[in-house]
Amino acid sequence: MLSVQEIGKRARQAAYPLANASTAIKNQALDAMADALESNKDRILSANTNDINDAKARGIGTAMLDRLSLNDKRIAQMADGLRMVRDLSDPVGEVVSMWKRPNGLLIGQQRVPLGVIGIIYEARPNVTADAVGLCLKTGNAVILRGGSEAINSNKAIVDILAKAATQVGIPENSIQLIEDTDRQSAVDMMKLHGYIDVLIPRGGAGLIRTVVENATVPTIETGVGNCHVYVDGDADINMATDIIVNAKTSRPAVCNAAETLLVDKAIAEAFLPVALPALEQKNVELRGCKVTCSIYPSCKAATEEDWATEYLDYILAVKVVDGIDQAIEHVNKYGTKHSEAIVTNDYQHAQRFLQEVDAAAVYVNASTRFTDGGEFGFGAEIGISTQKLHARGPMGLKELTTIKYIIYGNGQIRA
Amino acid sequence: MLSVQEIGKRARQAAYPLANASTAIKNQALDAMADALESNKDRILSANTNDINDAKARGIGTAMLDRLSLNDKRIAQMADGLRMVRDLSDPVGEVVSMWKRPNGLLIGQQRVPLGVIGIIYEARPNVTADAVGLCLKTGNAVILRGGSEAINSNKAIVDILAKAATQVGIPENSIQLIEDTDRQSAVDMMKLHGYIDVLIPRGGAGLIRTVVENATVPTIETGVGNCHVYVDGDADINMATDIIVNAKTSRPAVCNAAETLLVDKAIAEAFLPVALPALEQKNVELRGCKVTCSIYPSCKAATEEDWATEYLDYILAVKVVDGIDQAIEHVNKYGTKHSEAIVTNDYQHAQRFLQEVDAAAVYVNASTRFTDGGEFGFGAEIGISTQKLHARGPMGLKELTTIKYIIYGNGQIRA
Repeated sequence: MLSVQEIGKRARQAAYPLANASTAIKNQALDAMADALESNKDRILSANTNDINDAKARGIGTAMLDRLSLNDKRIAQMADGLRMVRDLSDPVGEVVSMWKRPNGLLIGQQRVPLGVIGIIYEARPNVTADAVGLCLKTGNAVILRGGSEAINSNKAIVDILAKAATQVGIPENSIQLIEDTDRQSAVDMMKLHGYIDVLIPRGGAGLIRTVVENATVPTIETGVGNCHVYVDGDADINMATDIIVNAKTSRPAVCNAAETLLVDKAIAEAFLPVALPALEQKNVELRGCKVTCSIYPSCKAATEEDWATEYLDYILAVKVVDGIDQAIEHVNKYGTKHSEAIVTNDYQHAQRFLQEVDAAAVYVNASTRFTDGGEFGFGAEIGISTQKLHARGPMGLKELTTIKYIIYGNGQIRA
Repeated sequence: MLSVQEIGKRARQAAYPLANASTAIKNQALDAMADALESNKDRILSANTNDINDAKARGIGTAMLDRLSLNDKRIAQMADGLRMVRDLSDPVGEVVSMWKRPNGLLIGQQRVPLGVIGIIYEARPNVTADAVGLCLKTGNAVILRGGSEAINSNKAIVDILAKAATQVGIPENSIQLIEDTDRQSAVDMMKLHGYIDVLIPRGGAGLIRTVVENATVPTIETGVGNCHVYVDGDADINMATDIIVNAKTSRPAVCNAAETLLVDKAIAEAFLPVALPALEQKNVELRGCKVTCSIYPSCKAATEEDWATEYLDYILAVKVVDGIDQAIEHVNKYGTKHSEAIVTNDYQHAQRFLQEVDAAAVYVNASTRFTDGGEFGFGAEIGISTQKLHARGPMGLKELTTIKYIIYGNGQIRA
């Protein structure tokens, strides 16, 4: 097995020719990769069966098993995902702006690949194909480090994708998997300074924390979402109910799902008896502040910890606040700067919420669930950044590039 | 003295109201700060005298003493720098792009402050005023941690600037200095995850390495520049000589100065006997490869280490290469991705160098010394990024902002 260091070195070498690969070659590779996934379906499913059996033997839960399982349909979706990325326009090479200085220098900002992207992720093997497709389209070499549960599936998928890509002319080692899945290999990867240009961890709060504490390479933190919906004093009660039900229950396990409902005290008595039963009907457990529990006694009492918790489950914290100031204060104190929504018909409150809430995506009268590369119109995404450096919110193809200054002179020297 | 943690907490609190401060208030503060520097000149000079005396007592070298020293002119320059930043346009609030989705959601990318910026820097006290001005203009709270040599000057300058700013309505604690200058305070600062949004170290390779190894906050690496000038086979010999002399000698101690000259073997015998004496006349010590030394025997022999060294001094490594392929390979192997130049009259070589060299700024027929916020037309800069995340090359006001998605809906929920 190659050392993590050696994998880094090879990726760095591959990155230079790959950065200059033409869009035509990259698209051809995406096509070939999609076809290869489909024609090697049996090999992938057989590797996946090994993972499933190992997981069952270790007594892994059904939710995790479902994330791990591949089938004909999921493999077809992976292939279609690659074809979709093929059809997106290639951001590499675009000159974003160019200007002439008084001394005649022509200075342009050109979009170029980041170089080598590292991705650490957990159980889902379909992330493997998605990540490889996005990195390849943007001319980046990729080093993948998936979870131990999916190692057989990942090995098969990466081997199939890498071979298909090199066969059409993509440099060797542009797509590599770290096959060692113990914790040390992940930590070694986080320290590949000089080899990895950007590390993107995709996973829960524990993974993100490990990366923050150990990484020496530049990192984009993704995904932790303690998101709020604030129902303002003159909100439309039906709209607000629809939005909180959607934000909480349409997919509770994802990062853009709502975790806390804040309600202006001016509307609490009218709104809570409508919204909370609708949530309970969807099996949501409610944990309310004192005022909430007094208005709607079937709530459990919330603790301080509830305001800070990303449940990723059918649980919702509910708090009645003293208007928009307290709502914004609460969001900025407990939120994780992911997605935040206000439901209101008050123009000034809408504008204040948009300006004063510190988050990647701030909504007026819409569900937090829209924070997603597809929903934003990016065609695809590699993750959702919750930090402020480089990219914020859904990261599409452009966010996998950086810029380089290209400067045309005719002999200029500096005075 | 406040703990580093407490300073972080206070900065975080200040950042929210500061992010929403109007351009008018921020400009008024910049004005007041400039005036305050001038009217408190004697206090600053007296603090600076203490620093100078301490430095002399410790036997610090003259170059360092010069960097540390303030005088009437330098204080006037600091004040003028603040007034210049006042006159730059405020990037905060700009909606970079906005689009409508098929479901009616109106999604905009709005430029917002990063929040809290940390800056670690070394001896020069004038960096203090520059950094404060740029952070204030962009609505960012700033935590400064200067070198121990300048601590008295920095305390005086920060106290004067912070008071002037708060007097016109800038939130308390928007501008703070870590007064403890032992190594631990810097390391503590690098670990202010949750309080500092971006840390910008300004200094030598040692500082950058310490930050890379210790920081848990997002960091922008700046400044290390092992820059090359490559003289291609059909370069204009006079232009190439002017450019290498300028790139090496106009200010050898800065990061955009050239450290290695690469010469195509096709032009070496004609070019080196013109260029190398011109460099020697400027007191440059030459360290050449075998071929260089055979053509120009007064060169010392270069070692492998020379190719990787940022001298920041009147020393230049010189290597004859086998054409543009080897030149690009050498630059990508030994360069620090800062500034790289080709001198050529070959159109295809010019385009290849621009595309294939991996650096923040790549020049055709111009000196590497232009990599600078002022020279690029940004009006000012906080440093030069040599990493690929967020910002690359000179960082002006825009690079001190991030974006936030603002989304206007009318009840949209996700299917």
